[in-house]
Amino acid sequence: MTGAQARRAIRKKQHAGPTATLAPGFVQANLVVVPQADADDMRLLCARNPVPCPMLEETAPGSHRSRLGSQSDLRVDLSAYRLWRDGELVERAADAKGWWRDDLVAFLIGCSFTFEWALTEAGLPPRHATCGVNVPMYRTAVPLAPAGKLHGHLIVSMRPYPADDLERVRTITRPFVEAHGEPVGWGYQHGLGIRDLSRPDEGDAVPFERGEIPVFWGCGVTPQQVAAESCLPYVITHEPGHMFVTDLRHDDLRRRRR
Amino acid sequence: MTGAQARRAIRKKQHAGPTATLAPGFVQANLVVVPQADADDMRLLCARNPVPCPMLEETAPGSHRSRLGSQSDLRVDLSAYRLWRDGELVERAADAKGWWRDDLVAFLIGCSFTFEWALTEAGLPPRHATCGVNVPMYRTAVPLAPAGKLHGHLIVSMRPYPADDLERVRTITRPFVEAHGEPVGWGYQHGLGIRDLSRPDEGDAVPFERGEIPVFWGCGVTPQQVAAESCLPYVITHEPGHMFVTDLRHDDLRRRRR
Repeated sequence: MTGAQARRAIRKKQHAGPTATLAPGFVQANLVVVPQADADDMRLLCARNPVPCPMLEETAPGSHRSRLGSQSDLRVDLSAYRLWRDGELVERAADAKGWWRDDLVAFLIGCSFTFEWALTEAGLPPRHATCGVNVPMYRTAVPLAPAGKLHGHLIVSMRPYPADDLERVRTITRPFVEAHGEPVGWGYQHGLGIRDLSRPDEGDAVPFERGEIPVFWGCGVTPQQVAAESCLPYVITHEPGHMFVTDLRHDDLRRRRR
Repeated sequence: MTGAQARRAIRKKQHAGPTATLAPGFVQANLVVVPQADADDMRLLCARNPVPCPMLEETAPGSHRSRLGSQSDLRVDLSAYRLWRDGELVERAADAKGWWRDDLVAFLIGCSFTFEWALTEAGLPPRHATCGVNVPMYRTAVPLAPAGKLHGHLIVSMRPYPADDLERVRTITRPFVEAHGEPVGWGYQHGLGIRDLSRPDEGDAVPFERGEIPVFWGCGVTPQQVAAESCLPYVITHEPGHMFVTDLRHDDLRRRRR
């Protein structure tokens, strides 16, 4: 299945769930959509916080097409959307048609599926994938660099790996700077301010095996935390795990290394 | 005095102190120099942490010329240098001639003098300038995004401002993304983990007036903290406050807004 085929299946409601296993090899992206009045701040937030928010694309105001997907329609090409008003998650839907406005600007942000693909290719599949659940995500105590009216805290995703594999895991994920790149912390002295790994703020807890340590990456759900903490008036996002599937290949992103 | 004249005065040892008041209107830069073997990591550290480490230039290996200064020589154009070995500050000198090696790569990083110039132009001169001391700098509890063998904590500089002026201060400094941009935090609930404002880790404490709050910016001394925490084998830096004066104008940097 290609990225275009995945988008078509979602648009026709033939696929409704998470997109992790759809269109293997194709880059997927986080979505955050704000009114044009908030777009300068969102662009600057991404520029100042490129590890959780590596921006792949910003659409023209009012456009629902992405250059990363032929004949794409960001209102219907994802399988689950969230609507935020004044910082509150107020509604969920299978498409965003009824929420779209002429002044909206969409930001597409790199996704961990890219480096998970690389880890899996190297024989290091992440635990949540082998367990068939969503990756666990945690709110940290690390403040983002604010941008205008936007502020908030870093969200991280976590994957357990044997301590002996840590340097390999870091090396494999490092080149994918547009997909969060290498980890932001690991072990138990990470300084991220996460209290209880068994209680993720989003996604599902995963089991540890003997000799494994937690490894944390910047997470593309961070803009949703920003929407909440900044009390943004109107934001559309994807539902975590339900991503926009692009026409880019993961290898393209490695080549786009900055 | 132009940037070129300032460099010449320093090179001839006609100027020996901090550079804050030299060549008004010209961009100054932080310096960090590492062996070529560590340059990939330093470049990535800057890319992943652009607020404290906005990179203006990376030199060719072995070159001591900067494109930002005509006929510049990074070994002698600053008035005070530091040498770090295995994470320890081991030596200080008025030039770096005796320390230079053929495999060294220099990174020039934007400096707060740029936004201080803009604040002063707007009638909001920073307190340390009116007191004639160095800006106070603090080590925070905020971990940087690691890059290869490099890791460490964010260093911030602090300037007191009336709470009523905060939004003006933020707006004025925001465009200078290559010079740390807008503040990373302010007030007393900043979450940066600074314990005692009267005891800066570098620079000098400054007095607060009634109604003023602390305002914190990312600081270009951060790579020195990285050199220390990462136990880097060989690093040359500037002495805080003793910067490389370029031929760029502050307004050029505003125009280079990304």
